[in-house]
Amino acid sequence: MTEGLDYRAAGVDVDEGERAVQLMKASVRQTFTPRVLSDLGSFGGLFRAEFPGISRPILVASTDGVGTKLKVAAMVGDYSTVGMDLVNHCVNDILAQGAEPLFFLDYIACGSLDSRTAAEIVSGMASACRENGCALLGGETAEMPGFYSPGDYDVAGTIVGVVDECSLITNDRVGPGMSLIGLPSTGLHTNGYSLARKVLFDLAGMSPGDRPAELGGGTVAEVLLAVHRSYLGAVAPLVRRGLVGGICHVTGGGIPGNLCRILPPGCGAEIREGWEEPPVFGLIGRLGGIPREEMRRAFNLGVGIILAVDSGNEEEVLGMLRDAGETPFPVGGTDSSGTIKFKPV
Amino acid sequence: MTEGLDYRAAGVDVDEGERAVQLMKASVRQTFTPRVLSDLGSFGGLFRAEFPGISRPILVASTDGVGTKLKVAAMVGDYSTVGMDLVNHCVNDILAQGAEPLFFLDYIACGSLDSRTAAEIVSGMASACRENGCALLGGETAEMPGFYSPGDYDVAGTIVGVVDECSLITNDRVGPGMSLIGLPSTGLHTNGYSLARKVLFDLAGMSPGDRPAELGGGTVAEVLLAVHRSYLGAVAPLVRRGLVGGICHVTGGGIPGNLCRILPPGCGAEIREGWEEPPVFGLIGRLGGIPREEMRRAFNLGVGIILAVDSGNEEEVLGMLRDAGETPFPVGGTDSSGTIKFKPV
Repeated sequence: MTEGLDYRAAGVDVDEGERAVQLMKASVRQTFTPRVLSDLGSFGGLFRAEFPGISRPILVASTDGVGTKLKVAAMVGDYSTVGMDLVNHCVNDILAQGAEPLFFLDYIACGSLDSRTAAEIVSGMASACRENGCALLGGETAEMPGFYSPGDYDVAGTIVGVVDECSLITNDRVGPGMSLIGLPSTGLHTNGYSLARKVLFDLAGMSPGDRPAELGGGTVAEVLLAVHRSYLGAVAPLVRRGLVGGICHVTGGGIPGNLCRILPPGCGAEIREGWEEPPVFGLIGRLGGIPREEMRRAFNLGVGIILAVDSGNEEEVLGMLRDAGETPFPVGGTDSSGTIKFKPV
Repeated sequence: MTEGLDYRAAGVDVDEGERAVQLMKASVRQTFTPRVLSDLGSFGGLFRAEFPGISRPILVASTDGVGTKLKVAAMVGDYSTVGMDLVNHCVNDILAQGAEPLFFLDYIACGSLDSRTAAEIVSGMASACRENGCALLGGETAEMPGFYSPGDYDVAGTIVGVVDECSLITNDRVGPGMSLIGLPSTGLHTNGYSLARKVLFDLAGMSPGDRPAELGGGTVAEVLLAVHRSYLGAVAPLVRRGLVGGICHVTGGGIPGNLCRILPPGCGAEIREGWEEPPVFGLIGRLGGIPREEMRRAFNLGVGIILAVDSGNEEEVLGMLRDAGETPFPVGGTDSSGTIKFKPV
């Protein structure tokens, strides 16, 4: 053997990793709140655990990924939005317990690191973090040769937020006779992409740039990459005023798979499907010949989050949401049936 | 089209995911400390933010992965230890700032979910969490068809710990003239696996079950899968007594790539390589013809963590570590050279 191996020959480029960190720095630093004590490069991110105005602080933490929405990003080479999807998804998950975000950490993994792509992903995260008042406190970018196809990136993240125990939503206030109020999703959010890709690209043979008439002018890729929105600004004021009994973030499993997480034993719900459903769902359902039952489990079908409110508070909640620029709609109500039934329009 | 598609036909098996959660439950619940308020299945994990005995609490958070050590686990179908690697790696990362762990969240991603494998990974995490007094507060298991090869699992995690500001290690007490004390690693820990696999399996044509004489009886897979150990029990008492100025967790980049993270500008170090190096490193270096310089950057070479201590405290620190059952060794000292030099034996 005349020449020795080095790490780069084994597929890991330490210098490209360092370039990625340099490219991320500015956008990450812009998320730092006064409670962040560390800078990039320390072994752990530092965050002062002081919570002014909160008498009994509860930390609420959640980890999530973006799923195969990342495959759509890879198809069009646009990684600018998946970081926003991830942060907003996590923000909504802890909002379901009444918490507001403190900090976020990311994990990016790929087979061959391109520093600009990694920086593009982090830039999206940083942008969403800023909008949600959340510090991007740390992260890990891993180059794992042989694990990922060239151009593929997996992205996951962890959020930590805080809620005062008196505002904590444990769903113990949910029971029969409550109104269920929905807020619109922007599209598929981060769920159902394996099925959507199979139908649109494999089965129907579409290309990401195609503009099927149903989508009203947008390309398939644009509609599929629509950013998973954050409900923090709309919902947090309701939580602080104690107007919400339960919050259901409609993620994997759809309404049936998530609403059951906030209903106590014996409590059921009737969902009246009268809301305006984004056309992408009808397109996928029709092209895939997917039974309605399966559509409800795979997709949010236009409802991003559901609030369970005492019926006496319904008008006040609707009014506050409209004042905040939202377009809330009734999605049904809880009952004592113990099951979740759907009533199509 | 006579039959419609469902999610399972698109490669996502929701029932298998549910089985995985059921298999994980018992081991995860065993990690719950009295400060955990939630159970599995809520949108976010709940942790009471009360820190008795700490006057100015600082949260310290870190995210990390296991890297391509996972490929070795996949080769032998043994996922029982990679979860421990991950938790201990994260514990050490926040220990480098003086923090003790509060809670951990995991992310597991695969192409096709096997509930027993996912549960095996989580069981390892739960076991390490218990040993470190850390709650396994939440996690996400993602099935992403087309993203991962069959049998491959990516695993990442996020830890959150706490330290009193008066014990926070920011390395501002590190300067020239300090002693550097090392504690032994158990092997490669979680770094250098792409290079190690290339040399041992691709270049030298070894099989995971081979027992090269240098490895003293163990198989290649056993030695490569040796668990990344936690230094919490050994090092936390030193931190609480203020005996440590800086802590360097020797991860990706080896001693040169990590020691520089705790040295202030102008401060350098001389590393005297006299410690007992586990034979796996010599084997990889020899078979790959890898220059010593590159070995130092790719591997920990037997040093898992380095403590920078005032030379006047060296004997006390060594004594406390030995009393705790450790075998500490001197690795050199800091100076005012501004560079990190290596002095081979």
